Amino acid sequence: MSSHVDGGSMGLDEIATKPHEQLAAHLAAKMEAVNLLIRDRMASRHAPRIPQVTAHLVEAGGKRLRPMLVLATADLCGYDGPFDVHLAATVEFIHTATLLHDDVVDESAQRRGRPTANLLWDNKSSVLVGDYLFARAFQLMVEPGSLRVLDILSNASATIAEGEVLQLSAAQDLATTEDIYLQVVRGKTAALFSAATEVGGVIAGAPETQIKALFEYGDALGIAFQIVDDLLDYQGDAKSTGKNVGDDFRERKLTLPVIKAVSAANAEERAFWKRTIEKGDQRDGDLEHALALMQSHGALEQTRAEALDWAARARAAIAVLPDHPVRGMLDRLAGYVVARIS
Amino acid sequence: MSSHVDGGSMGLDEIATKPHEQLAAHLAAKMEAVNLLIRDRMASRHAPRIPQVTAHLVEAGGKRLRPMLVLATADLCGYDGPFDVHLAATVEFIHTATLLHDDVVDESAQRRGRPTANLLWDNKSSVLVGDYLFARAFQLMVEPGSLRVLDILSNASATIAEGEVLQLSAAQDLATTEDIYLQVVRGKTAALFSAATEVGGVIAGAPETQIKALFEYGDALGIAFQIVDDLLDYQGDAKSTGKNVGDDFRERKLTLPVIKAVSAANAEERAFWKRTIEKGDQRDGDLEHALALMQSHGALEQTRAEALDWAARARAAIAVLPDHPVRGMLDRLAGYVVARIS
Repeated sequence: MSSHVDGGSMGLDEIATKPHEQLAAHLAAKMEAVNLLIRDRMASRHAPRIPQVTAHLVEAGGKRLRPMLVLATADLCGYDGPFDVHLAATVEFIHTATLLHDDVVDESAQRRGRPTANLLWDNKSSVLVGDYLFARAFQLMVEPGSLRVLDILSNASATIAEGEVLQLSAAQDLATTEDIYLQVVRGKTAALFSAATEVGGVIAGAPETQIKALFEYGDALGIAFQIVDDLLDYQGDAKSTGKNVGDDFRERKLTLPVIKAVSAANAEERAFWKRTIEKGDQRDGDLEHALALMQSHGALEQTRAEALDWAARARAAIAVLPDHPVRGMLDRLAGYVVARIS
Repeated sequence: MSSHVDGGSMGLDEIATKPHEQLAAHLAAKMEAVNLLIRDRMASRHAPRIPQVTAHLVEAGGKRLRPMLVLATADLCGYDGPFDVHLAATVEFIHTATLLHDDVVDESAQRRGRPTANLLWDNKSSVLVGDYLFARAFQLMVEPGSLRVLDILSNASATIAEGEVLQLSAAQDLATTEDIYLQVVRGKTAALFSAATEVGGVIAGAPETQIKALFEYGDALGIAFQIVDDLLDYQGDAKSTGKNVGDDFRERKLTLPVIKAVSAANAEERAFWKRTIEKGDQRDGDLEHALALMQSHGALEQTRAEALDWAARARAAIAVLPDHPVRGMLDRLAGYVVARIS
């Protein structure tokens, strides 16, 4: 029953291939249909600026993890209709729209190793083309004719937007709790992951227990994914992560390692965090001192344990789904997400 | 049959009261429910920035014309359920979200006589809270459980977003045609008006001919409304419009009066438009010269005639609806929109 789930039974080929690449290969025909639909729907007869801006982002690639999660879960639950493709394109459009708006908010200059749209064009185009993609996502998700799917995706959209605003007001605020961090993480990453996995089950007409399990898998996977990202910001190596150690510290972000170190801080340490994060007065050696404080309180180790725990929860959730090659791939995907910190 | 439609049968009270005020009085209980729902749904347990930003805009008032159009058309078609209130709040949320994003795009400092949110807070808040309102609108519109309503509102959202991008790329471009202008106007104003009037008929279960007429009424009303606005920018008086004559000229906007003057321009006049609108090199006396050119080609008179024609189309469309006090109010509303230029 669990032949695809535990590592011990994997063949050499499976060990050698990353799980998202296995998923991409398994779902290749459907993914091609998703790419065609994305290209078709982001076109605009009247406003050539739209495909210019979106092509720049959409063609840049990325792993297309979110649409793959829709296709994979629909496949896992035996769906054989056409609408998984619409919903996969929907989540990619929502994701791309949030990236466009994030770049305006973060005043970013680079995304996926290329200049951001707001740098190449202007903030106006990023805001309005983001709105256009949201509207297109919305049109796409109406097409399958499922009110339940619309309910899931509208709730996810609200969670995403609320999380973004929350992140803005929580930034540089030492009072940020782990609860607030979790809400921000759900908004940033997990809400769209869990919506993707849940709608896959819903359009396939899967039993409620399976739909619930799929939601939990996506939620836990997204949270693990984001915690790993936040941990690697403090202990990754730039070559494999593409980020410089300490970017979040310099941008004064309240991520889990900092929140844990702050909650364990004595008066002197608190003053340090107040100066560097709240006031933004950072000097040479501050990053090294921050890392030392995190280490002395076990903040990095606890953060790592939480990421592993969320990955384990994802694997436990997916285990209730029926035996299927995709189940094994999703199981290994959860392991892969935390492999960089294991 | 037409006792409420033609002016001759209006009582003194009706003549003295503006049609949108009559509508507000007739729909007072429902409008109160809309306001309560708006306040309830724009709240956020976690992100206090959200009600701060939105309250600033929503409390600022405005005529609430769009939600009123939903309630009025549902009432006119005999609807007695609760969901007109949800859809009315939906269109107000969409409208408010677009205002927030417009202010970022226009870098505006004032809206409805008050400082804009992007000035009081920052562009980030305007972008993200706008996204939050879109998501909330989306949740609200799913609640009535009508796929047709969702189809109408998702298509309107795409038209709005596409129109905004189109306006951006058409700005300062002398090649902008009247067709493009009309698409921009539909995106800016008419698409949400016509979606509001159409969904009113749809949730009331009105016959198809009536739903089509309601769509056409909203579309024509919105277009008339916007053309009047663009005309008054060149010939209104600042006291009654709250705008300074020539704002659009200074901002180099291709509105209908300019498009008409450009299409009739000789070589010398074309050079003038190229310098002032395309290159933005404006000098003392240019606005007066622009006005003289518009007058010499009848551009203002033709623009006025088009606005009156769209208002007449709105009145003709609403005439097929059954006799009802609201029908008379909507008819007079179309007349009122162009009264300032008649």
